[in-house]
Amino acid sequence: MIYFDNSATTLFKPECVKNAVYSTMSCLSANPGRASHSMAIKTASLIYYARKAIADEINLNNPDRIIFTASCTDALNMAILGSMKKGHVITTAYEHNSVLRPLFSKAKEYNTEISVIEPSFNGIDVKDIERILKRDTYMIIVNHVSNVTGQIAPLYEIGKLCKKHGILFIVDGAQSVGYHKIDVMENNIDMLAIAPHKGLHAVTGFGILALSEKVKLKHIKFGGTGTSSAEITQPLTYPEGFEVGTLPTVAISSLIPAIKWCEKNRLQNDKRIFDVSEIIINGLLTMPNVTLYTPRTLRNGIISFNVEGLSSSEACDILSSQYDICTRCGLHCAPLIHKYLGTISGGCIRVSVGCDNTYGEAEYLLDALREISRQ
Amino acid sequence: MIYFDNSATTLFKPECVKNAVYSTMSCLSANPGRASHSMAIKTASLIYYARKAIADEINLNNPDRIIFTASCTDALNMAILGSMKKGHVITTAYEHNSVLRPLFSKAKEYNTEISVIEPSFNGIDVKDIERILKRDTYMIIVNHVSNVTGQIAPLYEIGKLCKKHGILFIVDGAQSVGYHKIDVMENNIDMLAIAPHKGLHAVTGFGILALSEKVKLKHIKFGGTGTSSAEITQPLTYPEGFEVGTLPTVAISSLIPAIKWCEKNRLQNDKRIFDVSEIIINGLLTMPNVTLYTPRTLRNGIISFNVEGLSSSEACDILSSQYDICTRCGLHCAPLIHKYLGTISGGCIRVSVGCDNTYGEAEYLLDALREISRQ
Repeated sequence: MIYFDNSATTLFKPECVKNAVYSTMSCLSANPGRASHSMAIKTASLIYYARKAIADEINLNNPDRIIFTASCTDALNMAILGSMKKGHVITTAYEHNSVLRPLFSKAKEYNTEISVIEPSFNGIDVKDIERILKRDTYMIIVNHVSNVTGQIAPLYEIGKLCKKHGILFIVDGAQSVGYHKIDVMENNIDMLAIAPHKGLHAVTGFGILALSEKVKLKHIKFGGTGTSSAEITQPLTYPEGFEVGTLPTVAISSLIPAIKWCEKNRLQNDKRIFDVSEIIINGLLTMPNVTLYTPRTLRNGIISFNVEGLSSSEACDILSSQYDICTRCGLHCAPLIHKYLGTISGGCIRVSVGCDNTYGEAEYLLDALREISRQ
Repeated sequence: MIYFDNSATTLFKPECVKNAVYSTMSCLSANPGRASHSMAIKTASLIYYARKAIADEINLNNPDRIIFTASCTDALNMAILGSMKKGHVITTAYEHNSVLRPLFSKAKEYNTEISVIEPSFNGIDVKDIERILKRDTYMIIVNHVSNVTGQIAPLYEIGKLCKKHGILFIVDGAQSVGYHKIDVMENNIDMLAIAPHKGLHAVTGFGILALSEKVKLKHIKFGGTGTSSAEITQPLTYPEGFEVGTLPTVAISSLIPAIKWCEKNRLQNDKRIFDVSEIIINGLLTMPNVTLYTPRTLRNGIISFNVEGLSSSEACDILSSQYDICTRCGLHCAPLIHKYLGTISGGCIRVSVGCDNTYGEAEYLLDALREISRQ
C-alpha cells in the first residue's frame, strides 16, 4: 500500500510519538486541572509543557493563550463563532468548510456580511483584500496553505493590513504548521488554528487554537473547568474557561515529542517532500491527458490534477483498487476554490506527499497514471 | 501512590486498550470518511464497528445515531444546546456544570425557563418532577449517578414520565456507563452522554452522544464532513453531519476492547468496587469527626465526606503530601448539590474507587483518615 493522502492525516507517526502516547496511557492518565493530588499535578504539568512547546514553536509569548480543542475544525469554530458580530468579514475562496460552514451558517443570525476573495494568478493578492475593506470589517480569515492546490497565502502582508486597520486576523494552519514555520508575532496573527496530526506528526484527537493577547472570545462551549465551580456561568479565564470537559491528555502527550521530532528532521523532511513533489509534478506535466491545478512552481507536497475522460472518483478508485495507491478525490471539503478551478462538478485527484514517501513510490504513481490516462 | 480519583478518570487502562491504541497509531491512522481508498475504508470500518459496539452495549438499534464527540461534556453541550428553545426545562440539583453551564448560559437567549429539582431523602423523586411539569416542558436532564454523592436517579420512572408527556429525556451517564448497564430503549432515553474514559476504561480523548430516532438536533459545530462538500450549509445527516473535523480515531480505537474487557470482568469489577466501598464507608462511619454525604447504603465507589476542623482541600492536600493518596476536594464541578448538602463554601473530600483498588489500600486510607481526624 502506498499512502499519498498525507493532507488528510499523516499516516507515519514517529516512534517517539507512539511511545509517549503509550506511556501516558500506562502511568499518567489522571485528569489534569481537576484535583490537587500528585498525579493530577503531574498530568497538569504535562499539559502545561505541551502548551509551552507549541507556543515556542509559533512564537507566542503566553502559553495560557494556547487552547487545546477537539480538532483544527473545532479550533476554527471557536475562533469564528466566538468572534462573530454585526459587521463585515473577509475570507477567501481557498477556505475549507471548517471556515465556510460556521461563517455562512451564522451570518444571518449575527448580521454579518461576508466577502470572499477570488484568487488571482498567484493566489490571494493582498491588494484585492485592501480594495474591499469596509469601515466595519472586523475579521479576516485566511487559509495559509490550500488543501486543494497547495497555494500559499501572503500572511505577512495580510497581517500588516490587519494590524493597520485593527482587524482580527485568523489563520487556518491545518496544512502548514509542522511544514512551514509560522511566527504569529511577526505576521500579526490573532488566532492560529492547528491540526497537530498533520504536519507535526502528532496523533489524531486534538487541535490547537493559539490566541494573541488582544483576542476576547465569546464561549461556544460550556462545562466544568475545575475553577470557579460554584458559578454556573462559564469562566472567562484562559485557557481553562475555553477547555471544558476532560482534556484529551493521551493525545496531547504526543505533542512535545512530535515537535522535537519535526525540529530534528526538518531539513530532511522538507527535502524529501520537495523532491518527491518535483518528480510527480514534472511527470504529470509530461502527460498530455492530465490537467494540473497546483501551481507548477510549488513543491510543498499538495498536488491536484485530473485525468481527461475520468472523474476524479473513478481515477482514485482505480489507483486504490488496481495499484493500491491511496489518494483523495472530490472536493476536499473546499467547494469555492473548485468553482474557480472549474472542477466543482467532479472535484479533482489530490496526491499529498508525506516525509516518508519515496522516490520509487512517486515513479510507481506516475507509471500508474500513465497507464490510466492512456486508457 | 494510591489512586482514589477514579470518578475523574480511571487511571487503570487494560492492556488490550493500550495495545489497540498503539496498533492504530502504527498502522491504521488514516482519516475515516474522507476518501475512498483502502486505508480510509479500513479506518471507517473501525469507526463503524466502534459505533456498533457501544450501540449494542446500551441497546440502541441504530449505530448511525451514535455521535462521537470530544468528551462527555461536549456531548452534553451538543444535546442541550442542540435542543434548547422557548419553553420549560427540568433538571436536578445533582447536575454537573457540563449541564448547568450550557443550560443557564443560554436560558435567556432561548427564552427557556429552568426548574431545578432538589433531592429528597432518597435522591430524586419522580413525583417531584411530575408535580412541576408544565404544558411547555420539553426537556428533562438527569445525572444518572451523582459524581458527588454516588446517588442514583430513577431513570426508568423518569423515562416513563417523559414518554407519556412527549418530553425529551437527556441522561448524563458520565459516572455510570461501564459500571451500570443502561438500556436506552427500556428507559425511554432520548440522549445519553457517555465518558468512555471513566467506567468503560477506554482512553481520554473522546465522548459519545447516543440519540434516539426521534431526536432532531440543531448544529452547534460546523465544518467538513466528507459529504455534500459543495454545500456550505451543514448537512443534517447522522452521524457525519454532527461529527465535524477529523475524528479522534486513535482514542476511539480503544472503545471496542474496552467494552469487551468490561463485559468479561464485570462481576469481578463490581464486586471489587462494592467491597472496597464497603470497607471505606463502614470505616468512615466509626469516625466521630467525619460527616458522610454519600448515602450509607450505597456501595458504588463514590464516597464523599468531610473531616471536622479541616477544609476539604486541606484534608486532600494532607492525604496527597503525607500519605501519597490521590483524592479530590472542592465542589467537583457540581455546585447545586453542595448547597443542599451544606458544603457550598468548602466542598467535600471525594474518594472514588476503581476496580483496581485493593482492600489494603482502603485500610491504608482509613488509617490515614483516623490520624488526620484525630489531629
